[in-house]
Amino acid sequence: MRSAPLVALVLGVASVVRADEGMWLFNQPPRSILAERYQFTPDDAWLQHLQKSCVRMGASGSFVSQDGLLLSNHHVGAGALEKLSTPEKNYLHDGFYAHSPADELKCPDMEVNVLQSIEDVSARVNTAVPANADAATAFAARRRIIAEIEKESLDKTGLKSDVVTLWQGGTYHLYRYKRYTDVRIVFAPEQQIAFYGGDPDNFEFPRYDYDVCFFRVYEDDKPAKTADFLKFSPSGPATGELVFVAGHPGGTGRLLTMTELDDLRDLALPMRLASLKRRETLLVNWSERSEENARRARGLLFVIQNSRKASDGRLAGLLDPALMAAKTRAEADFKARLAGKAEFSDALAAYDKIAGATKIQAAQAVRSSLLEGGTGFDCESFRIARTLLRATEERAKPNGDRLREFSDANKASLELGLFSPKPIYTDLEILTLSDALTFLATQCGGDDLLVKKVLAGKSPHDRALQLINETRVRDVGFRKQVYEGGTKAVAAANDPMIELARLVDPEARALRKVAEEQSEMKQQAHGAIARAANTLLGTGGNRYPDATGTLRLSFGTVKGYDEDGKAVAPLTTFVGLYGRTLEMEGRPPFDLPANWKRGQNRLDLSTPYNFISTCDIIGGNSGSPVVNRNGDFVGIIFDGNLQSLPWDYAFDDRQGRATAVDSAAILEGLDKVYRVKGLVRELLDGRLSKHVSN
Amino acid sequence: MRSAPLVALVLGVASVVRADEGMWLFNQPPRSILAERYQFTPDDAWLQHLQKSCVRMGASGSFVSQDGLLLSNHHVGAGALEKLSTPEKNYLHDGFYAHSPADELKCPDMEVNVLQSIEDVSARVNTAVPANADAATAFAARRRIIAEIEKESLDKTGLKSDVVTLWQGGTYHLYRYKRYTDVRIVFAPEQQIAFYGGDPDNFEFPRYDYDVCFFRVYEDDKPAKTADFLKFSPSGPATGELVFVAGHPGGTGRLLTMTELDDLRDLALPMRLASLKRRETLLVNWSERSEENARRARGLLFVIQNSRKASDGRLAGLLDPALMAAKTRAEADFKARLAGKAEFSDALAAYDKIAGATKIQAAQAVRSSLLEGGTGFDCESFRIARTLLRATEERAKPNGDRLREFSDANKASLELGLFSPKPIYTDLEILTLSDALTFLATQCGGDDLLVKKVLAGKSPHDRALQLINETRVRDVGFRKQVYEGGTKAVAAANDPMIELARLVDPEARALRKVAEEQSEMKQQAHGAIARAANTLLGTGGNRYPDATGTLRLSFGTVKGYDEDGKAVAPLTTFVGLYGRTLEMEGRPPFDLPANWKRGQNRLDLSTPYNFISTCDIIGGNSGSPVVNRNGDFVGIIFDGNLQSLPWDYAFDDRQGRATAVDSAAILEGLDKVYRVKGLVRELLDGRLSKHVSN
Repeated sequence: MRSAPLVALVLGVASVVRADEGMWLFNQPPRSILAERYQFTPDDAWLQHLQKSCVRMGASGSFVSQDGLLLSNHHVGAGALEKLSTPEKNYLHDGFYAHSPADELKCPDMEVNVLQSIEDVSARVNTAVPANADAATAFAARRRIIAEIEKESLDKTGLKSDVVTLWQGGTYHLYRYKRYTDVRIVFAPEQQIAFYGGDPDNFEFPRYDYDVCFFRVYEDDKPAKTADFLKFSPSGPATGELVFVAGHPGGTGRLLTMTELDDLRDLALPMRLASLKRRETLLVNWSERSEENARRARGLLFVIQNSRKASDGRLAGLLDPALMAAKTRAEADFKARLAGKAEFSDALAAYDKIAGATKIQAAQAVRSSLLEGGTGFDCESFRIARTLLRATEERAKPNGDRLREFSDANKASLELGLFSPKPIYTDLEILTLSDALTFLATQCGGDDLLVKKVLAGKSPHDRALQLINETRVRDVGFRKQVYEGGTKAVAAANDPMIELARLVDPEARALRKVAEEQSEMKQQAHGAIARAANTLLGTGGNRYPDATGTLRLSFGTVKGYDEDGKAVAPLTTFVGLYGRTLEMEGRPPFDLPANWKRGQNRLDLSTPYNFISTCDIIGGNSGSPVVNRNGDFVGIIFDGNLQSLPWDYAFDDRQGRATAVDSAAILEGLDKVYRVKGLVRELLDGRLSKHVSN
Repeated sequence: MRSAPLVALVLGVASVVRADEGMWLFNQPPRSILAERYQFTPDDAWLQHLQKSCVRMGASGSFVSQDGLLLSNHHVGAGALEKLSTPEKNYLHDGFYAHSPADELKCPDMEVNVLQSIEDVSARVNTAVPANADAATAFAARRRIIAEIEKESLDKTGLKSDVVTLWQGGTYHLYRYKRYTDVRIVFAPEQQIAFYGGDPDNFEFPRYDYDVCFFRVYEDDKPAKTADFLKFSPSGPATGELVFVAGHPGGTGRLLTMTELDDLRDLALPMRLASLKRRETLLVNWSERSEENARRARGLLFVIQNSRKASDGRLAGLLDPALMAAKTRAEADFKARLAGKAEFSDALAAYDKIAGATKIQAAQAVRSSLLEGGTGFDCESFRIARTLLRATEERAKPNGDRLREFSDANKASLELGLFSPKPIYTDLEILTLSDALTFLATQCGGDDLLVKKVLAGKSPHDRALQLINETRVRDVGFRKQVYEGGTKAVAAANDPMIELARLVDPEARALRKVAEEQSEMKQQAHGAIARAANTLLGTGGNRYPDATGTLRLSFGTVKGYDEDGKAVAPLTTFVGLYGRTLEMEGRPPFDLPANWKRGQNRLDLSTPYNFISTCDIIGGNSGSPVVNRNGDFVGIIFDGNLQSLPWDYAFDDRQGRATAVDSAAILEGLDKVYRVKGLVRELLDGRLSKHVSN
């Protein structure tokens, strides 16, 4: 069925959209498409209400009561839960429920932003940039006017103000946010049910995850009044129903040129995948040797496996000739429209500039990844050592001349990371560094001069052993001391890992410099193409810009698909959850928390659990509310299926789907499994219940 | 400790050995080394007795009673156990014991060979080869004289007679074997205890495997009389004790030149490892999605994981600068001895010939592996399809002109494999073929012309789906029909998988032709080097030839080692087995068979279980007896540790060790866990016990 005619496939660059594609701007919604296809015309009030009910918090979330109750994914709250946990009380593993607002747990460093208004400031930005300036001058002028607009807005409104660069520089919009910095945890399920099925079921469908976490925002130590919140539907969406997703997709590359896509397909993604699979094999096998190994490697292994699945999915998209042929055609068509027109000559020339820059980056990709990307020295100790070395070197330079992670603006977060007391395990460090040095040696060849210096006459294993055993960078006190002491203290420490970083740094920095120059060149070229496209095709309700981590609206229907000739139904139920557990004999990651074992008999097992829709999402949409025509909350996005992974490059709803937890399942779980009556009542009433005891 | 001075490291090419290195010929034993280092001089009777007590049976084994009782590894007998199993009775999983000879199970196709004599026939072979013949003429003449010698010997003695090429062609020895073809299973433990710890503990030490299997050879339907057998020691070896291993190491590359080792290190092994890790990740993750997936992938996954561990270990050896520096030095020293001497000019020139051939092979290695190696089409269906295509094409040619696997001599085994009714799983086929086609496309680039033809306008997944669903090669009847029908029937079948094989075949065959020509050239060059080395250094008791799958003698001591500063003891006990199970909470592959759970209280838990020694072994040594100075059986080799894996290229006993089951543990297990009193009595008495009932 995947080889059916490609009627639904739609492409970014120069096309207008078909199918249920699009991450639409709230100030340029797809009104005519919705009217024509679904006979639905959202008015301004509908859009405003949804916009102000949504929040940005790393990823996405939404208010679901007038008293600041906020719903997002468990995996969005996981960091906070981990920070709040103690050796005695593991909230991440065991879950949490506050029986009253007084019991709610304040997150140490969480910020929630609610978009209040959008203003087009393109004219002001573009006017401030001299017409025939070179790239550097234009860049500086743009940076200046943007900072000015943001400061002016903040002073005037008191709202957090960000100028957002859309269409690769074609348009500039000013986004103003109301900020909440007192965010507390109300309810979290056990991680085991939130991420039920673990890596094996990650990005798959059917799916059985209760990936939710409730927070509450506070002002003046009291639950904030949130007049805009989503009415919680006790029944979820029907199959085939039109639904909307409002959230913060992080970034897409749908306007990448063919030369960039070819590079991703033939070089960047295969290289990345080989590295991920090598490291996954290493950690899986080390983990199998003991429980303690498994515990130590778990976090890193999750990141690697998640990334490996995502990259495999993206590569599959780029190897779909239908997708690539359509992209090729669209690019050729658009170039034909540019040809021979003086005003578009820079846009036409941009394609060759992008191809040239991509080629230069590709030529040094392997070595750049090893030396600057650090894949040749993969361990925490090396990352710390290099940060110490570079931080002290960079600090001596003017702010504007530094590598970006060492700017004054980044100082606080840099130091937070650098002085983190998180445990670093010697055995795991030796394991990953040995493997990385082996990889370095085989990729560069064992006779490479830098490799010989790096290994210092030892085998990769012996060298890793020596470096990890002799370095002092795992001691936070040592880090602080040399960081504060500056370059002299770093040199005096004569630490073998810092000296290794120093040995590699000249070539690493040189590789980075080339890569960054080429990236800047590509960005400017993309801006030229985007401006031409906007002139020729408009930027209104028929096209949308690549995702930028800002609020977007998607739409689609609840819909199954065919996979290898088999129909995949659009939703699962609790029956499926218990069936999957039985089928896998309850072995991790298919084991159920005690609450869910005990709750089985109380649950209405036919309740819809997870559902899929054709809504256009990407990483960053986690926690986005799914709403119906009424704007009621009917579900929460937490994942996409494997076939949605190529959506980085092109939307395709033949099989690609966004995955959500059904609102009916959320309620049923709270009510029957956790029996948190107060929270259930608040969701149904839309306000805090004073008189329910749990 | 690994970076200690390299006093013990010893190298092949042109050195004489130090340390406990060597896979010695029985007719050229290291008498002076043993005398000097261990004050032990094995006499001819000692050697003859050991030689005739050993057997070749795929891998290795030895007689342990006068009534034909034969001991090898469980993993050597696994194939036979699998063939004898039925859906009702799974001997591989459950184990087997014959309470009396009448109950012993005849293996369907097992052959056991016992070496009776060795005769040097080098003069006769070399005389028959014309002095200045070109390579092809020399090759043919050699082949003719060898066949003549073998036939003459068989006719005269009735013994199986093989001329063995030693020293890469420097020497020819005639080996005569007594054959047994009636081999029966006496006792096998459960696979779970034989391969306890599975892949995570494979190649590791400490180790806890009961990897033994007892057979009995028969003549005229009666237990054969085997006058030469090893006396079974009830107590195993002591730490530090001198021990010997007699067995059939399959092949080593200790005489490879530096250019060949560099190629292995920088290209061949990294390429192989990337492929193995890619496939392992694929199968591990697919297996985790369901029990049935896991069952279907298990066999393939074992082979991949075993190979991955072995290749990682070999690569680590080649990245040990100490090892490579010593090899480099030895080669340079030897070349210096050749220089300027006319009689060695061919040997000196051989190095460049080998370098040239290696370079040609390396240049086409990626494409050769994909197209001819078949890694670009990894599935059973493709292998079958190509065999059908080629078998029918090759059959039309004279025997001598065919690809070697289609020779008349190979016909029976080819057809056995081709018409095997073993199950082929459609879902697993689609999985591996999708992954392989993805790999093919990324390696060759998505715009490669052959790749485009292979994918036929589809994505790798869709193309795999179509090929696997539409091919008929999984039907054994179809295979027979087109195989017998010849090229016309193959063409008429118009099977999509066969047609894919046909599409790829011209380039695949061309790549193979180049690779084989270069291999032949390398072989001849190696012969020249070996002859020069033999002339300069001798072939007696101070040097040994690379392993050739024939009987060899190794020696060493029972000895622990230091790993990353921690001491690894030279032996484990049953306490360790139960401790490991407890530590891993009995999860597979650390679960114990019921017999071993029940037997725990009966066992003397302090019994030595697995031990390591510095004896020089390699693949093929599995099942080799370990004997002491008295020639008594004290253990059985079943593995080496990770650090022994580079022994393919150079022996190094700083950490490398051979792993064996202790004879004391074998007895204790038979006695207390399995309570097979008859077998215990036979081992202690050295003959069948008539009066013991079990």
